[in-house]
Amino acid sequence: MISVVILGAGNVATHLFKGFSKTSEVSVVQWYNRSLSAIQSYESIVDITDDLNTLKEADVYILAVSDDVICELSSKLPFKNKLVVHTSGSVSVYDIDKKHKRGVLYPLQSFSKNAEMDFANVPICIETIDKACFPILKELSLSLGSPIKRINSDQRRVLHLAAVFVNNFTNQLYRIGHEITESEGAEFDLLKPLILETAKKVQEMSPFKAQTGPAKRNDKKTIKKHLKTLESQHHKDIYELLTKSIIHTHGRKKL
Amino acid sequence: MISVVILGAGNVATHLFKGFSKTSEVSVVQWYNRSLSAIQSYESIVDITDDLNTLKEADVYILAVSDDVICELSSKLPFKNKLVVHTSGSVSVYDIDKKHKRGVLYPLQSFSKNAEMDFANVPICIETIDKACFPILKELSLSLGSPIKRINSDQRRVLHLAAVFVNNFTNQLYRIGHEITESEGAEFDLLKPLILETAKKVQEMSPFKAQTGPAKRNDKKTIKKHLKTLESQHHKDIYELLTKSIIHTHGRKKL
Repeated sequence: MISVVILGAGNVATHLFKGFSKTSEVSVVQWYNRSLSAIQSYESIVDITDDLNTLKEADVYILAVSDDVICELSSKLPFKNKLVVHTSGSVSVYDIDKKHKRGVLYPLQSFSKNAEMDFANVPICIETIDKACFPILKELSLSLGSPIKRINSDQRRVLHLAAVFVNNFTNQLYRIGHEITESEGAEFDLLKPLILETAKKVQEMSPFKAQTGPAKRNDKKTIKKHLKTLESQHHKDIYELLTKSIIHTHGRKKL
Repeated sequence: MISVVILGAGNVATHLFKGFSKTSEVSVVQWYNRSLSAIQSYESIVDITDDLNTLKEADVYILAVSDDVICELSSKLPFKNKLVVHTSGSVSVYDIDKKHKRGVLYPLQSFSKNAEMDFANVPICIETIDKACFPILKELSLSLGSPIKRINSDQRRVLHLAAVFVNNFTNQLYRIGHEITESEGAEFDLLKPLILETAKKVQEMSPFKAQTGPAKRNDKKTIKKHLKTLESQHHKDIYELLTKSIIHTHGRKKL
């Protein structure tokens, strides 16, 4: 049985708590947050605290807090030589105070507070400085049912960055799709099956192979028509840049 | 029973043929293509031809051909006053020769030749010049199990344009995610559940509400770190433009 203390009360902290609560291999012995109110509703099922000096003994301390406070919180922990990990995609493992054994459990998924999270769809990327810390973090992650992958700092950095492209930027393209359709009173709903199909397609096929459309064909007539239809200069800029990008990728023209 | 002649042998033509073949409400009485070889394998189940002068009598003629040849092919049809529709998102209904009753059946989905197509996930946008032509096109589409929507030319134009954003451009962001992860030997596969989740999220929630990440938070520190990590100027340009777009949408800063 691995004992864990969770620190933080955001989406990741909450989903990890719920996830671990379902397993028999992990026991969350305590949940810390600087303000108790955010975790008060869990006090009947787990020991909660807002006082770092009352932290219990555990195998792993998980700092599921904002990037900005990882460093400070880790140095405030009133013990040393214990395994302390954060869950951020973009913060260095060395931001954790060096008095600890240090690691990262980076769940590569978008967490919404209210939606149920199936950890089978949440790859957990594990980074440790000391190899000896890996097995316990692996066991912890596998207990959730997550696929796991050992990665290094550079790999975590690019994964976090790539996640911004495939999640935040993609979502912004959906938003622009919404704006464009609404401008003529067409329904954004009509695009939803296409959105899903586009995401499904690259589960089996590389994005390179999956590409279709006017830019891939370098179909100048349609591209011109589209640019004429777009009313916002901002939308035009995005259309032009991504069209150029596709043409570049598919080799018809140098950038 | 609605009788149909399909013209063309691309993905849309093939999926329509397969779709109609499963229904009891529609009979494909003939399949035309300028080259017989592309449809030869179907000759045991449907009458095939490469000669426009042998076209059979039917209720609807579906021109599922390249945008560029719709106009010419429609004028070459050796009859008039029949219902002739094309399936393009970007070609005007008036490109069809005016000797015909004219319409459009625009299936809003990305068609791959080999994948099975479930028409329940293919909204069909119907446009007609003469209202009287709508019911038969509606019946035709419903027989496939597709959701249908009556739209006008302007709406079809913006839907086709928005489809480029949510499909081709989104797919290019996946491609860039692939490039970025591979640059450090990280696995693109780790991003696949996030890609799917991002698409699923907007099935229920507006893209505006679904947005998260550094640009939405206007988190300058992370944005700076990401721009530093990106090696290609081209990737940097896309990162900057889409970050600006998200910041604009979420109201922290004017463009």
